[in-house]
Amino acid sequence: MAAKKKIKTPPRIRKKRLSAKATIGQVPGVPVYVGHKTESELSIEVIEYNKGMLEERHLSSIEEAYPFVESEPVSWININGLSHTSVIEKIGKRYGIHPLVVEDIVNTQQRPKVEEFQDHLFVVVKMLHMDEEKGLIVEHLSLVLGSHYVISFQEAEGDVFDPVRTRLRGDKGVIRSMRSDYLLYALMDAVVDYYFHLLDEIGNRIESLEDQLFEDQTSEEMPTEIQSLKREILRIRRAISPLREIVSRIEKSGHPNISEKIMLYLSDLQDHIIQVSESIEIYREMTWSLMDMYMTAISNKMNTIMKVLTIIATIFIPLTFIAGIYGMNFEYIPELKYRNGYFILLGIMLLIFLAMLYYFRRKKWL
Amino acid sequence: MAAKKKIKTPPRIRKKRLSAKATIGQVPGVPVYVGHKTESELSIEVIEYNKGMLEERHLSSIEEAYPFVESEPVSWININGLSHTSVIEKIGKRYGIHPLVVEDIVNTQQRPKVEEFQDHLFVVVKMLHMDEEKGLIVEHLSLVLGSHYVISFQEAEGDVFDPVRTRLRGDKGVIRSMRSDYLLYALMDAVVDYYFHLLDEIGNRIESLEDQLFEDQTSEEMPTEIQSLKREILRIRRAISPLREIVSRIEKSGHPNISEKIMLYLSDLQDHIIQVSESIEIYREMTWSLMDMYMTAISNKMNTIMKVLTIIATIFIPLTFIAGIYGMNFEYIPELKYRNGYFILLGIMLLIFLAMLYYFRRKKWL
Amino acid sequence: MAAKKKIKTPPRIRKKRLSAKATIGQVPGVPVYVGHKTESELSIEVIEYNKGMLEERHLSSIEEAYPFVESEPVSWININGLSHTSVIEKIGKRYGIHPLVVEDIVNTQQRPKVEEFQDHLFVVVKMLHMDEEKGLIVEHLSLVLGSHYVISFQEAEGDVFDPVRTRLRGDKGVIRSMRSDYLLYALMDAVVDYYFHLLDEIGNRIESLEDQLFEDQTSEEMPTEIQSLKREILRIRRAISPLREIVSRIEKSGHPNISEKIMLYLSDLQDHIIQVSESIEIYREMTWSLMDMYMTAISNKMNTIMKVLTIIATIFIPLTFIAGIYGMNFEYIPELKYRNGYFILLGIMLLIFLAMLYYFRRKKWL
Amino acid sequence: MAAKKKIKTPPRIRKKRLSAKATIGQVPGVPVYVGHKTESELSIEVIEYNKGMLEERHLSSIEEAYPFVESEPVSWININGLSHTSVIEKIGKRYGIHPLVVEDIVNTQQRPKVEEFQDHLFVVVKMLHMDEEKGLIVEHLSLVLGSHYVISFQEAEGDVFDPVRTRLRGDKGVIRSMRSDYLLYALMDAVVDYYFHLLDEIGNRIESLEDQLFEDQTSEEMPTEIQSLKREILRIRRAISPLREIVSRIEKSGHPNISEKIMLYLSDLQDHIIQVSESIEIYREMTWSLMDMYMTAISNKMNTIMKVLTIIATIFIPLTFIAGIYGMNFEYIPELKYRNGYFILLGIMLLIFLAMLYYFRRKKWL
Amino acid sequence: MAAKKKIKTPPRIRKKRLSAKATIGQVPGVPVYVGHKTESELSIEVIEYNKGMLEERHLSSIEEAYPFVESEPVSWININGLSHTSVIEKIGKRYGIHPLVVEDIVNTQQRPKVEEFQDHLFVVVKMLHMDEEKGLIVEHLSLVLGSHYVISFQEAEGDVFDPVRTRLRGDKGVIRSMRSDYLLYALMDAVVDYYFHLLDEIGNRIESLEDQLFEDQTSEEMPTEIQSLKREILRIRRAISPLREIVSRIEKSGHPNISEKIMLYLSDLQDHIIQVSESIEIYREMTWSLMDMYMTAISNKMNTIMKVLTIIATIFIPLTFIAGIYGMNFEYIPELKYRNGYFILLGIMLLIFLAMLYYFRRKKWL
Ligand SMILES: [Mg+2]
Ligand SMILES: [Mg+2]
Ligand SMILES: [Mg+2]
Ligand SMILES: [Mg+2]
Ligand SMILES: [Mg+2]
Ligand SMILES: [Mg+2]
Ligand SMILES: [Mg+2]
Ligand SMILES: [Mg+2]
Ligand SMILES: [Mg+2]
Ligand SMILES: [Mg+2]
Ligand SMILES: [Mg+2]
Ligand SMILES: [Mg+2]
Ligand SMILES: [Mg+2]
Ligand SMILES: [Mg+2]
Ligand SMILES: [Mg+2]
Ligand SMILES: [Mg+2]
Ligand SMILES: [Mg+2]
Ligand SMILES: [Mg+2]
Ligand SMILES: [Mg+2]
Ligand SMILES: [Mg+2]
Ligand SMILES: [Mg+2]
Ligand SMILES: [Mg+2]
Ligand SMILES: [Mg+2]
Ligand SMILES: [Mg+2]
Ligand SMILES: [Mg+2]
Ligand SMILES: [Mg+2]
Ligand SMILES: [Mg+2]
Ligand SMILES: [Mg+2]
Ligand SMILES: [Mg+2]
Ligand SMILES: [Mg+2]
Ligand SMILES: [Mg+2]
Repeated sequence: MAAKKKIKTPPRIRKKRLSAKATIGQVPGVPVYVGHKTESELSIEVIEYNKGMLEERHLSSIEEAYPFVESEPVSWININGLSHTSVIEKIGKRYGIHPLVVEDIVNTQQRPKVEEFQDHLFVVVKMLHMDEEKGLIVEHLSLVLGSHYVISFQEAEGDVFDPVRTRLRGDKGVIRSMRSDYLLYALMDAVVDYYFHLLDEIGNRIESLEDQLFEDQTSEEMPTEIQSLKREILRIRRAISPLREIVSRIEKSGHPNISEKIMLYLSDLQDHIIQVSESIEIYREMTWSLMDMYMTAISNKMNTIMKVLTIIATIFIPLTFIAGIYGMNFEYIPELKYRNGYFILLGIMLLIFLAMLYYFRRKKWL
Repeated sequence: MAAKKKIKTPPRIRKKRLSAKATIGQVPGVPVYVGHKTESELSIEVIEYNKGMLEERHLSSIEEAYPFVESEPVSWININGLSHTSVIEKIGKRYGIHPLVVEDIVNTQQRPKVEEFQDHLFVVVKMLHMDEEKGLIVEHLSLVLGSHYVISFQEAEGDVFDPVRTRLRGDKGVIRSMRSDYLLYALMDAVVDYYFHLLDEIGNRIESLEDQLFEDQTSEEMPTEIQSLKREILRIRRAISPLREIVSRIEKSGHPNISEKIMLYLSDLQDHIIQVSESIEIYREMTWSLMDMYMTAISNKMNTIMKVLTIIATIFIPLTFIAGIYGMNFEYIPELKYRNGYFILLGIMLLIFLAMLYYFRRKKWL
Repeated sequence: MAAKKKIKTPPRIRKKRLSAKATIGQVPGVPVYVGHKTESELSIEVIEYNKGMLEERHLSSIEEAYPFVESEPVSWININGLSHTSVIEKIGKRYGIHPLVVEDIVNTQQRPKVEEFQDHLFVVVKMLHMDEEKGLIVEHLSLVLGSHYVISFQEAEGDVFDPVRTRLRGDKGVIRSMRSDYLLYALMDAVVDYYFHLLDEIGNRIESLEDQLFEDQTSEEMPTEIQSLKREILRIRRAISPLREIVSRIEKSGHPNISEKIMLYLSDLQDHIIQVSESIEIYREMTWSLMDMYMTAISNKMNTIMKVLTIIATIFIPLTFIAGIYGMNFEYIPELKYRNGYFILLGIMLLIFLAMLYYFRRKKWL
Repeated sequence: MAAKKKIKTPPRIRKKRLSAKATIGQVPGVPVYVGHKTESELSIEVIEYNKGMLEERHLSSIEEAYPFVESEPVSWININGLSHTSVIEKIGKRYGIHPLVVEDIVNTQQRPKVEEFQDHLFVVVKMLHMDEEKGLIVEHLSLVLGSHYVISFQEAEGDVFDPVRTRLRGDKGVIRSMRSDYLLYALMDAVVDYYFHLLDEIGNRIESLEDQLFEDQTSEEMPTEIQSLKREILRIRRAISPLREIVSRIEKSGHPNISEKIMLYLSDLQDHIIQVSESIEIYREMTWSLMDMYMTAISNKMNTIMKVLTIIATIFIPLTFIAGIYGMNFEYIPELKYRNGYFILLGIMLLIFLAMLYYFRRKKWL
Repeated sequence: MAAKKKIKTPPRIRKKRLSAKATIGQVPGVPVYVGHKTESELSIEVIEYNKGMLEERHLSSIEEAYPFVESEPVSWININGLSHTSVIEKIGKRYGIHPLVVEDIVNTQQRPKVEEFQDHLFVVVKMLHMDEEKGLIVEHLSLVLGSHYVISFQEAEGDVFDPVRTRLRGDKGVIRSMRSDYLLYALMDAVVDYYFHLLDEIGNRIESLEDQLFEDQTSEEMPTEIQSLKREILRIRRAISPLREIVSRIEKSGHPNISEKIMLYLSDLQDHIIQVSESIEIYREMTWSLMDMYMTAISNKMNTIMKVLTIIATIFIPLTFIAGIYGMNFEYIPELKYRNGYFILLGIMLLIFLAMLYYFRRKKWL
């Protein structure tokens, strides 16, 4: 097998656990941000486009985003900064989003789901990326699909949507000729495409561990690495598994904002989601059995250690005993007087030694 | 990794197992309290409210609670003390609650469920809290929803409803403008919100164990701690898992006491329940694999111990043998006569010693 | 933790396996008793009752039981002794029971089920008790519900129905005012109530094993005890798990012998069955992981043993070597001549000894 | 526990794996026999019967079996020897059996199934027997049910149908008064009855292994025995598990060859199949956990071995060191001069020895 | 057990993981080939046939394949070389295949599926072969079924269809008399038939490992071999498991290109798929438990090693101590003066030695 660079495990950082305590029994519909990115700045970007035009703007206040609810071209309003709950509430009110939905937008512990309302569709997904320094990042992403707008809510700046922006700006493919439902699809597709990338990294780490085990380079850190792989796989699975139902519910919703044209694209997306789910299950099984491999590896090591000890002790303890016999101070030990007693004894010891070696070789211990 | 305070495991207290023996083949519909809190005092609180008024009372006899069944404002009658079965029977009779339901109210082993009756809805849930001294506490909570009242039955005083009381008193949110169905929702929501808090504690204990294993601080108590984590997780799961079906049955019941306005709130609650269930499954898997981690940790320790023994024995046993050879009392051992025999032998021993060290280093045992 | 008496494991008795050989390819509908209680005597008890009267009789021949099929008051005919197959056949013929049903009545390997016939309902359940001497006993119990009679068939005398008999005799609760369907319910309820008691015993044994493991009192018998716990749990589960479907099929049967009044009682029974099933699953998981606990316990013991060996060997083997050096008989070993050579060497040995102690303490082996 | 004869594991014979290679991409509908019994001779038996008559014949050519397709009494045509594919094809053509069905009849790897055709029903089941010399035998059995005939196709002579033949000849039970559908039932019932017998053997082997483990008679062959038990259980499960669906599909088929009278018998058969399936699942769990028991047994053995070593080494290594001290040749060792030095030292050694014994006893190692 | 040649494990080659990165967020419907066979040459074969004629052609440009869309005889157009995406796009456009389908044709990570379009059916399956040098090969195969053509798209040359070609050329069976739907069936059947062959190889490797374990020939490579078996089984399962649903969806599609005549063949194919799935599950369980067998094997080895050490040490350490006693230099040790002291001591040592041997034999260690 070709040598292979050891994949670096992401650092074992543990974030402060999000405390659920603040929200116990609180008034429902009042948005409370419970995520980590409390210092993230607010940023509002709007891309307005149709086949003939595209206009990109960075808004300085949320009020500037109000008119897009009625404007004819498709508008993509992207809001970063979920900790700015009052801003989210304002845009929610203007766009007719129910307070309980607004609460879900800022509640980063909300699981992926879809909800239908008369004039819009509400979708929650998890945007996953693997950060070299911070490990697996699960970003809460909410999408509101109106008849000619999509609002996306992110925890903080930084996302996986640059290829979509490029396609919009460069008028690649059909995106500029389609309605807002296609934009929703394109955003979800970008999120799912990134899952594949993430799974590659997981797969590489599993293979790296397997390779190390194969080359007998066990370390005491491995169980912890395997455990953190398990944890990540479980977290990814949790983020991904509700998606299957979400897409099929969008397909069957018959919502006016979802056109017939989009159906094939959604089923293509569904395909990808199933593929991702299957991969994560395979990785799960592989990871679970890594622990058994590790266990056998250290047991094998133990066997090797014990063999060395046993061989040495089994050879020299009896010989030492014989030497001890002739080191006794009895007045009358006839052998001690023999002219060649010493050399005869050395010869006997050599024979014993060789017999032992032969015995161990036959047992395949040597 | 930053140092982390070890989370204290709750004490390993074992309550007297509730004996099921008393109830074998007994007359059904006769309430028998089988819980632990047999000395809990009876206390009856009533909060009567609508948008315009709120009145809080502590009743001294159950008969004072009779009129609320017809009174127009919403009444929340909270009864603590399930061991007072005759009181429960009286209120049950007055409010038209079936004897079998009364039995379920005081039977703390009854699993969560919902049952529909013509003029009321009966809901059983488990109120969980983690007590520092007594460990996980599972309190049996029954809720009866009438057209303008909710009766809650608790085993003993102390609950998770203070935020709801605060909202009622301070007229926060919509609670005072809504009917009794919203109160039922608010109480169940408070119970479920507390599950999140409980799961945080479980999560912290799992991470604490992982951290200890990572830092090689295994102790012989760990398997017991892991086992009691497992037990608690199984108990929590048992309390939580029926809830999913309960809420969806309430939603679909079409019961006159459940208004259309409450639907969105119930589906928000359902969301939270699913989230809690998913978390508990993840914690379950993590806990199960903690045992494997522990097992590898002690095997690794064994390897270390055996290495030390093997290295020492392998080095000194052969050297001791050589010393034994020259401690023999044969009359003719020529080497003993050599002027520098002793120093030459010491030199040879040193060489053997160094060769051994080299061997072990190459094997990466040192 | 408070001291706790060790629960005695029931003795590891193995009954002669019931041979299925006798029944291979035999004529269906011919009853063959395949149970253990082949010497059990036949006994026939009848309790006839309505609100106004109750009459208890012990019949000396099966023919005396013939009239009850038409008699108006409710009759409970309890027949003990399944090995008396010809008697069972006679009563079966008189009461219009299909030969295949008669075969199921005496076939103790028949799993729990319900079957509807035009004028009667046939129910098989398993009556479980834990016998101090014989371990878990699974008794085959068949119930035939007619419009105003219930026939119960037991393998041998001894059952869990005494509380029901007491209620009948003392006219407690509603039992005397109800029809035969309530009697069927009451008998099944008594059987299920006893399951709770049985589960308590299982729970106590699991906890006892956990406690022993916690207090480090492993014994080599434990794996066998755990294995027999597993076996019992699997057998109980097998007896209990079909019950859920049975009760819901009775509820939905719309059979004329099942009145509307009985529905609430049946759903109460169903509740209890689900509770029992959930408990057995939890015990199952706890028992399965007991084995892992045991495994870690003996590994921990091994570590302790090896530490003792390693410490002793690591300290004394090098010291013995040094002593061996100065036991050599070389003519010229200058150290031997030193006036204080012996004392200096003892000092050096002491230093080595202390250094070792320090090393082991730092490694936390001491 | 009473002594128990060790059950002999069936020999570990491995048949030549049936090669699937011959059939890759071949013309469908052309029968290819892929079983082991390629040398089995062809034999054709016919039993023709109704209430009044029974005639048994051994046919010498397949053409003699042609008339039975129309003859009025019920005919059971039993053909042994699936390797005679051309014969199977001929009878298939005469009785209107589809070529794909003929292929299934000779394809021994075909799983159990039922297929409905206009004038016949085609059923595949597996006839299992445990052969003392060849281990578990899975024989492929196909049954074709016509309006007044059943054709059974077996791989080779030898089956479980002798009790059915006896019932036919002796006119026991209702078999001679019933139609061909009852014959199909009777044959399937005989096959299923034999499963019980087989499960008994599996159960006995599991218990035998448990008993050996209980009595500490582990052998290195056990894991292989357990593994082959697992393999057999998986193979049996595979043969049995499709049966449940098969019988319920026959019941619901409404096929003209299946009469109403047969329904109760089929549901009795279904009962037995479910019982068998449950047993196999229990045996599966028991077998899986046997491996864990074995593992703990050898770990316990290791502990015992290590204890012996540790006790001996811990006692004698320090004593030997002390003896080594006084074996040194220093010129000035004052103790050596003491009159009672030797005896005092022996005394000290004895004290150390006793102290060690006391220590090990307190640790419960002795 | 007969000696058995060790099956060679396929080499542990790891292909460069296909990077999903290139496709993140890209325009959907633009085909991107992500497989390994980027250098595979393009080759286009056409077989045109009906009952009366058959014509085979190798096309040099894709344009030559255009007319077959309308030509009456059945045409099988087989295109090898998925990396030639522009060619695939051209034929796709001519034959009315949707761009998203064209993308799936070249996307080798696409899971098996079926999609219905107005005038054609699109099927993706995985063609599996085990290559001696490259291990398990999963080749992406797409099939487009038109009313009188089938187009097959393969990654590279080499397939499992030669038996189908032979049947076509030799007019064997019904293939030349049937329509294109039968050709689709025949191709899928050939793929599935090959799965059986593959499973045989998996089965052989499992048995080979079992045999090695049985004959105690454990090697440290085994866990890696087992792990790679697991990985392959998981990959095969992933390729196979969607097939069940695919065939049943084709059966139920009612698509005009699927004729009634083909139904029996499809259900025969379905049979085979279920058989393959069951086998893979059995192999999965067997493989998983191989690891446990391996673990017990190395534990048994450890026990043997430790027994040797313990026996040797336990016998000679005490004897060496005794020799050490009489090697002490005390001035007054009376035994040393005895005329036969030495021989008496040797006798005592021999007795101790024999006693030890007896002890170990009774413990069954020898
Ligand atoms: Mg809340
Ligand atoms: Mg972001
Ligand atoms: Mg995609
Ligand atoms: Mg999470
Ligand atoms: Mg696609
Ligand atoms: Mg495992
Ligand atoms: Mg009761
Ligand atoms: Mg309370
Ligand atoms: Mg909530
Ligand atoms: Mg509980
Ligand atoms: Mg919400
Ligand atoms: Mg495991
Ligand atoms: Mg029978
Ligand atoms: Mg039966
Ligand atoms: Mg009885
Ligand atoms: Mg009950
Ligand atoms: Mg049983
Ligand atoms: Mg109840
Ligand atoms: Mg296990
Ligand atoms: Mg485990
Ligand atoms: Mg074929
Ligand atoms: Mg046969
Ligand atoms: Mg039967
Ligand atoms: Mg098979
Ligand atoms: Mg296992
Ligand atoms: Mg894409
Ligand atoms: Mg190819
Ligand atoms: Mg095939
Ligand atoms: Mg793959
Ligand atoms: Mg077939
Ligand atoms: Mg395991």
